[in-house]
Amino acid sequence: MDTVTPEFNVMTLGCPSRLIMQRLGDKWTPLVLLALQEHPQRFSHIRERIGGVTPKVLTQTLRTLERDGLLTRTIYPQVPPRVEYELTELGRSVLEPMEILRLWSQDHAEKILEARDTYDALHDG
Amino acid sequence: MDTVTPEFNVMTLGCPSRLIMQRLGDKWTPLVLLALQEHPQRFSHIRERIGGVTPKVLTQTLRTLERDGLLTRTIYPQVPPRVEYELTELGRSVLEPMEILRLWSQDHAEKILEARDTYDALHDG
Repeated sequence: MDTVTPEFNVMTLGCPSRLIMQRLGDKWTPLVLLALQEHPQRFSHIRERIGGVTPKVLTQTLRTLERDGLLTRTIYPQVPPRVEYELTELGRSVLEPMEILRLWSQDHAEKILEARDTYDALHDG
Repeated sequence: MDTVTPEFNVMTLGCPSRLIMQRLGDKWTPLVLLALQEHPQRFSHIRERIGGVTPKVLTQTLRTLERDGLLTRTIYPQVPPRVEYELTELGRSVLEPMEILRLWSQDHAEKILEARDTYDALHDG
C-alpha cells in the first residue's frame, strides 16, 4: 500500500503547518532568527542584539527553535565553556520570509501609525 | 527646521515597526488576513473559515486590524444588520508576506516534524 503524503494547509484546524506558522510569528522568533542571520552567536550577544527579552524567554525560544531544527546549539569545551547558536540550512531558508515580513513592517510602519491616529480620533474624540 | 523622517528598524528596541511585526505574526492575524484574501466576509464566515478561534479573540483581532488600517468594517443597514470585513489596500499589501510565510510553513512542516522527533528521541530516550 502506498503511503499518502499529507497535504499541509494552515487554513485547516489541527494542521501542524498552522502551529508552525503561529510559532514563526511569535513575539521573539523572527528577531532571534534575524539576529543569527550573519554569524553564529552566543546567548549574551543575541540578547543584547534584540533587547527587551528576558533570559528565561530567550532560553525557551532558542530551545524551541533547536527542537524544530532551525538552529544548532554547540558547546565548545573550554574554560569557561563557550556556547554558540547557529542557523541550520532549514533555519537559513526561513530568513527570506522573515526579511520580507521585516521589510513590510518597516516600510508600512508610518502608514499604520497614521491609521491608528485616525481611528483613535474617530472613536475617542 | 526640517522634520527628520524616522528610520524604522525592527532590531531596535522600542521601534514601532517591531511591535507591528510582532502583531502581524500573532496567533490569529495571518489566518484572518488570509481568510479575507478573496472576498469581504461576515464575522461568522471568518470564524468558520479559520476554526478554533473564540468569538472574543476574533473580535479583538478584527478590531486591532481595523485600527491599524488593514481592514474596514462596514455595517449595511438592513434587518438584521449585515456587517462585513474587507481588506484595505494596505491590508492587501500584507498578503504577499503572509502568503510567503504560509507557503514556507506548509512546505517545511514535514522537515520540522522530523526534526522534533529526532530532538525528542535524543533528549528523552
